[in-house]
Amino acid sequence: MQNLIDGRQIAADIHAETRVRVEALRSRGVTPRIVFVRVGEDPASRVYVGMKERICAELGLESTTLVLDTATPQADLLARVVALNADASVHGILVQAPLPAQIDAPTVFATVAVDKDVDGFHPVNVGRLLLGDSSGFVSCTPAGVHELLLRSGTPIAGANVVILGRGNIVGKPMAAILMQKGPGADATVTVCHSRTRGIEEYCQRADILIAAIGVPRFVTASMVKPGAVVIDVGVNRVADSSARSGSRLVGDVDFAAVQPIAGRITPNPGGVGPMTIAMLMRNTVRAAEIQHE
Amino acid sequence: MQNLIDGRQIAADIHAETRVRVEALRSRGVTPRIVFVRVGEDPASRVYVGMKERICAELGLESTTLVLDTATPQADLLARVVALNADASVHGILVQAPLPAQIDAPTVFATVAVDKDVDGFHPVNVGRLLLGDSSGFVSCTPAGVHELLLRSGTPIAGANVVILGRGNIVGKPMAAILMQKGPGADATVTVCHSRTRGIEEYCQRADILIAAIGVPRFVTASMVKPGAVVIDVGVNRVADSSARSGSRLVGDVDFAAVQPIAGRITPNPGGVGPMTIAMLMRNTVRAAEIQHE
Repeated sequence: MQNLIDGRQIAADIHAETRVRVEALRSRGVTPRIVFVRVGEDPASRVYVGMKERICAELGLESTTLVLDTATPQADLLARVVALNADASVHGILVQAPLPAQIDAPTVFATVAVDKDVDGFHPVNVGRLLLGDSSGFVSCTPAGVHELLLRSGTPIAGANVVILGRGNIVGKPMAAILMQKGPGADATVTVCHSRTRGIEEYCQRADILIAAIGVPRFVTASMVKPGAVVIDVGVNRVADSSARSGSRLVGDVDFAAVQPIAGRITPNPGGVGPMTIAMLMRNTVRAAEIQHE
Repeated sequence: MQNLIDGRQIAADIHAETRVRVEALRSRGVTPRIVFVRVGEDPASRVYVGMKERICAELGLESTTLVLDTATPQADLLARVVALNADASVHGILVQAPLPAQIDAPTVFATVAVDKDVDGFHPVNVGRLLLGDSSGFVSCTPAGVHELLLRSGTPIAGANVVILGRGNIVGKPMAAILMQKGPGADATVTVCHSRTRGIEEYCQRADILIAAIGVPRFVTASMVKPGAVVIDVGVNRVADSSARSGSRLVGDVDFAAVQPIAGRITPNPGGVGPMTIAMLMRNTVRAAEIQHE
């Protein structure tokens, strides 16, 4: 398994850098603080927020989790967000998705103060990203994939990058990052999706293949060019009668089949997942730095 | 020349639709009004603003042009924009590029009120575009290209679209429009640029080829798949000793060579250019409609 891109190790390296910045802030009397807002008791959300809280504690960030009833009206949630925007002790705000049906997630994301939007979901931050303005916050999963590519020494400039999936959280911002002009980018980016015709052929030409399409083991061996770098962003729950819970998580890549062909590949779990949290921590520390400049 | 996409005719059709909306507004006592801000005496800017003023008059929009000295400090320009933002009689604001060197254009564009940003350059509007939120203003040239494709009956869903150029005004927003989920989009989009390796091969596979790379006659016959739809966004000034001015404008496509191969092709001039103004007029009327809802 010489060709693995070890997301856990790279995330740990970034955490070490973040910890140094946290200590610098704390030595100035500033403890970076993030507030997680969780609406309802979605099991995955509970797990995610719990992991983020734990890593905050490890790195010396302060975190608070606001748990709201699953029936919370949108107006009440927005009022909470507005109050957090105004609270100078809060540097970052993360409203955990998915949200209950009565709440319009884009409206919530657009209500978070731009300079506390450590999730990078606010339209201003998305716009800055596409415009190549580095002053904004970049959403954590695509930023994490970018760091995996950079820190694994993957050549990006001029590479044929194929992104599978065009979601607002991964596919579209991922494309925006890699098509920019300048160091760490300059890729030729194609965004494929459910309506793409001949998706296999696009994949077969990719130097870097990023799978965020939400289909279990979508990427098979025949779709990967020998030597290509394969990044698996997928988190799909599939039935598994042998598991105690009756299900398990699988990625968008048929890892066992693709790993021998790929030049480099992320394991899943242990690839992109840890990076998402590492980017969230880094964004939060950056938010605190900017707010206390 | 059966295969031309006649931008002048399509723009005229859109102008007719816009005029109906202008009349509806005027019957309610609202005259849509745009203010053009021109800094200095750049000859191309003078021509562009003059054309826009003329078409405003033809369609029944009111326009005012604010001409500022070429040495205007950025702070003064921003103060003017802020005053226009606050002026309820102004529905749309357009600060004409290029701007003199002492002025940072992105800062100016981000200062224009989001709901008066008829150029679609504000980061919020760019972010909305990438996120698939249709409440924003879309920048005029890519919106115009989109209308050319729609009104020429070009199949977009599932099409392999290759965009040459990744500028903030055309390439990037163009990609954002066509990769969205839904009617009029659903294309598979690749963005190529100066760092792309093997750019000819990407072009040769394109069902729709959109050239906005700023290189005179970059797209040659051998780069075009027979039957492809070719859109020429380029406006390049080249030396021409036979012209009175000593120069003339040419596009990014070698029209004479490509036209016989293409399924449909825009002339240049007479293709994208008129559409940009048509979209500006439509955006301005929409701004007035929204502000007087």
